[in-house]
Amino acid sequence: MMSSACHTSNHQLQLSQARAPLTLTTRVMNEQGEWQDIALACERPLTLYLNKRELVTLMTLGEDPEALVLGYLRNQGLVENLEDIEAIQVDWEVGAAAVKTSRDVANLEELLSTRTITTGCGQGTVFGNQMARLASLDLPQWPLKQSQIYTLLDNLKTHNATYRNAGAVHGCAVCTADGEVLAFCEDIGRHNAVDTLAGRMWLQGIKPEQAIFYTTGRLTSEMVMKTAQMGISVLLSRSGATQMGLEIAMQLKLLLLARAKGRHFQVFASQQRLDLDARPTLRPGDLL
Amino acid sequence: MMSSACHTSNHQLQLSQARAPLTLTTRVMNEQGEWQDIALACERPLTLYLNKRELVTLMTLGEDPEALVLGYLRNQGLVENLEDIEAIQVDWEVGAAAVKTSRDVANLEELLSTRTITTGCGQGTVFGNQMARLASLDLPQWPLKQSQIYTLLDNLKTHNATYRNAGAVHGCAVCTADGEVLAFCEDIGRHNAVDTLAGRMWLQGIKPEQAIFYTTGRLTSEMVMKTAQMGISVLLSRSGATQMGLEIAMQLKLLLLARAKGRHFQVFASQQRLDLDARPTLRPGDLL
Repeated sequence: MMSSACHTSNHQLQLSQARAPLTLTTRVMNEQGEWQDIALACERPLTLYLNKRELVTLMTLGEDPEALVLGYLRNQGLVENLEDIEAIQVDWEVGAAAVKTSRDVANLEELLSTRTITTGCGQGTVFGNQMARLASLDLPQWPLKQSQIYTLLDNLKTHNATYRNAGAVHGCAVCTADGEVLAFCEDIGRHNAVDTLAGRMWLQGIKPEQAIFYTTGRLTSEMVMKTAQMGISVLLSRSGATQMGLEIAMQLKLLLLARAKGRHFQVFASQQRLDLDARPTLRPGDLL
Repeated sequence: MMSSACHTSNHQLQLSQARAPLTLTTRVMNEQGEWQDIALACERPLTLYLNKRELVTLMTLGEDPEALVLGYLRNQGLVENLEDIEAIQVDWEVGAAAVKTSRDVANLEELLSTRTITTGCGQGTVFGNQMARLASLDLPQWPLKQSQIYTLLDNLKTHNATYRNAGAVHGCAVCTADGEVLAFCEDIGRHNAVDTLAGRMWLQGIKPEQAIFYTTGRLTSEMVMKTAQMGISVLLSRSGATQMGLEIAMQLKLLLLARAKGRHFQVFASQQRLDLDARPTLRPGDLL
């Protein structure tokens, strides 16, 4: 098994680099009775053990399992600092990820026994506690330019390899304010993709203050909360939003953009932070 | 609060009929700086108490919360028979659903403490146990006609009211072999929509033997397992499938159809059960 060490100041983190195929080919029959080979996105269970305590089984594409595990622990509030983690070892043979922390997670059993599983199309999260924790957040209120959105959408076109090949996955990205893609991830579930990027931000030292979070998934309450939790104040989606996603974005002062495709988008919250410096030229048909 | 009683033979089930708006209107700004009113799908937390024990918080559109709660308990294997349930009372004021069973759920604490939370884009489920339980299933191997698929897709067009109005929701349906829609449900998460239909099947006495399950969502492992668990052997989706969704369908002998839109579809498993009695006429351009 490959492995690497990740150094941050005095801290050394042991990481496996477990890799597995992301797609495989299968034969399907279409409506004409013709057989064709198509690519399918892989899906595999990964059971997470924190200091030998079984926590959860994540169904994942498996693109970057170490970052997924790290981001899951981060977004669930089970690990506060990257420095607390000594090792993450993923073994696809047995579908297990073993995480070792340098000190015991305070009140782990209590945290696990009292947590309320919240689920929409989501993972278990501590909804009430999380909102209380987020209420004290002071997200950076920087202004975004429309031209930066378009640069970002153009840059993303080359990244969604698995989706273009096999479909059935969601994509997420962390980008700079200028639209440069710092990290991109695809997964079966949109929450896994978000968690993987939360893990990568820690591992790569990506700062959230001037970052934009992009997702192909819908902007539900959990998606908005996770973005805020990462310290990111601009959230952009190709899909729509729910009423609660909007409410939480307003409460936490996120700039929320939905249905971003081509030159089109809709701004749902914090509209005053957007500078419309690149309005598309109206074509004759648009005025009809 | 409205309520009703549901009689099945000697059994009387007390059900609230909690209703709440499914969409609301908000103002958004587009890429031209123009403001427009659009509809948003609602999303609300519903915390489920089973005999006063808190189980889970579901983030739901709220179309049919009593059936959702019932189907959740059924699909999680926490309730084996409809007759074991005395009352389901949903109160949107406090976002709570109280379920009372006629006898204690055997080993509830043990079930809850040992269950592994499985999550893709999913809810907590007992993955390993569930597959073991499903392996003994003997799903009915009836033949399906292509013309029945087309009738079903045509019939579904009038049902997805919230999606057409506000987007951001998944739809599911239980249909007869002839394509008649027996039950339809939309929700924020595709798993909630499936669970709601599992609940409705019990409440309406819908038999699964000759039924078709339709979903707008992707055919991941959990979706295929839940369909099999309901005793349904034909699963049809507008979206794609994952490799594990396919593997489980093959193992459990489900007829699995994906990317069903217009006249197009792809058959992933149990192709021999499909009678291609309505192949679309090829237009000149199709042969190029």
